[in-house]
Amino acid sequence: MQWDSIFLSMTKPVVHTRVKKVGNSGMLDSDDVLATEEPLEIRIISGPTHNRRQQQVSVTMRTPGNDEDLAAGFLFSEGIIHSYDAIAHTKMVTTKEGSIITVTLRENVTPQLGNSQRNFTATAACGMCGKTDIANIHTGASVSKAVIATSADTIFRLPETLRVQQSLFESTGGIHAAALFDNEGELIILQEDIGRHNAVDKVIGKAMREAMFPLDQHLLLLSGRAGFELIQKAAMAGIPVVAAVGAPSSMAVRMAEEWNITLIGFLREQRFNIYSGAHRVEI
Amino acid sequence: MQWDSIFLSMTKPVVHTRVKKVGNSGMLDSDDVLATEEPLEIRIISGPTHNRRQQQVSVTMRTPGNDEDLAAGFLFSEGIIHSYDAIAHTKMVTTKEGSIITVTLRENVTPQLGNSQRNFTATAACGMCGKTDIANIHTGASVSKAVIATSADTIFRLPETLRVQQSLFESTGGIHAAALFDNEGELIILQEDIGRHNAVDKVIGKAMREAMFPLDQHLLLLSGRAGFELIQKAAMAGIPVVAAVGAPSSMAVRMAEEWNITLIGFLREQRFNIYSGAHRVEI
Repeated sequence: MQWDSIFLSMTKPVVHTRVKKVGNSGMLDSDDVLATEEPLEIRIISGPTHNRRQQQVSVTMRTPGNDEDLAAGFLFSEGIIHSYDAIAHTKMVTTKEGSIITVTLRENVTPQLGNSQRNFTATAACGMCGKTDIANIHTGASVSKAVIATSADTIFRLPETLRVQQSLFESTGGIHAAALFDNEGELIILQEDIGRHNAVDKVIGKAMREAMFPLDQHLLLLSGRAGFELIQKAAMAGIPVVAAVGAPSSMAVRMAEEWNITLIGFLREQRFNIYSGAHRVEI
Repeated sequence: MQWDSIFLSMTKPVVHTRVKKVGNSGMLDSDDVLATEEPLEIRIISGPTHNRRQQQVSVTMRTPGNDEDLAAGFLFSEGIIHSYDAIAHTKMVTTKEGSIITVTLRENVTPQLGNSQRNFTATAACGMCGKTDIANIHTGASVSKAVIATSADTIFRLPETLRVQQSLFESTGGIHAAALFDNEGELIILQEDIGRHNAVDKVIGKAMREAMFPLDQHLLLLSGRAGFELIQKAAMAGIPVVAAVGAPSSMAVRMAEEWNITLIGFLREQRFNIYSGAHRVEI
């Protein structure tokens, strides 16, 4: 197998391909655009000067782009680092084997990697890949006590604002978006990725980098469904309102209830469901 | 946090919840149904009588139901076992901490767990969670040399057949389906799960249990998008045609090309795109 060719396309968020379109009138050769799905290995370097240590913490299948934000957001939302200040610098290397981003932590920072050397590994939709027993899948999260009130009208408008801004989905039809809005429904950060948890990590990483924390006056919009790991990431970042265009899972609702996060699902232009924290929504 | 309450709902594929429905006319209390997303830990027992050994191989967030098929399909499609005969028996235990399924292998079977004790962990959409470096994310797959011809008309009909049979999606709006069809478009196995890779593992596990291998005259239909890990699982099971209602990723297309799998995307009632292996489709 020629893996070389697979990895040579690196760094582009979409790839062009030839496709045969089949319809009632037969088969037609055509061009098509695919969302890129390629591996990113995240490593950290930590420890005192005389004893620096490099560790692999994750391999994630992601859409290339904003990889520094992805790495920072992943490390934060997994509880490995607690602020952007923990990062001294990052280095990205792309070879034909794949991309590796190495995040060097400041000397006084001890990464919270858990009891043992865990092997984190993530795919395009994996937000809990470093935890190897059931008790470990719930990372400690800062409970959101945020006081924020958003009108139903503001929430109705979010998906359309997202659609207008989303660039990759337009071309590929196969990508997730996560977007941070302010209380008035203004789009602050939009990130796209083939993995929805990557899109959220990119949003959180960018918000960290731009020193926007705390995010207790913000809303997170998800273009797809709300799985529990996305609620977990929102909780870690202190985001009090999560709205999903798709359905929430049972675990997502339970977590949102426990952490006092306002969880909205099935958000369409003129309707949505509130699964928890209805007090933050003004009708 | 009251985790007890989260896990007490176990074994049911859907849970009922109260929801506030918001529309133009205000807010209304209502009932709603959520797809259950709960952890399943997969363990294997292997080795000779005098030295039986238990190992954890995965924690996956899945929708309860057909858990034996899920475990068998996961072990097979990850290359840990090579046939259903490898399994002596399985035991399922559900406590308030979560569910654990223990798969006892026959004494003469050596599980292929890789070089070291790897920590597999999977979420609802994670198909490669045991691999901790980039070189490892491509498991060895049996290249499909299957000769099978399917008409475009047969393929057009697959999504409607799936929709009619899909039970959980109807109620929750938030679940993936994977279905195995024969060459004439007859539905053979349908499985639903909040994780699309789990749905595929359940299909493969059931096909193994029912001694349907090889699957070289079958089609796999995916209700959502086609990520690379689903192509990998199809390849492991020798399924020559994969059709997705949604978009394929770049890696999915490359893998399908390399393994000579017919990959169809954006399958609607009267059209679809062929990304690789067009020779198996008769127009």
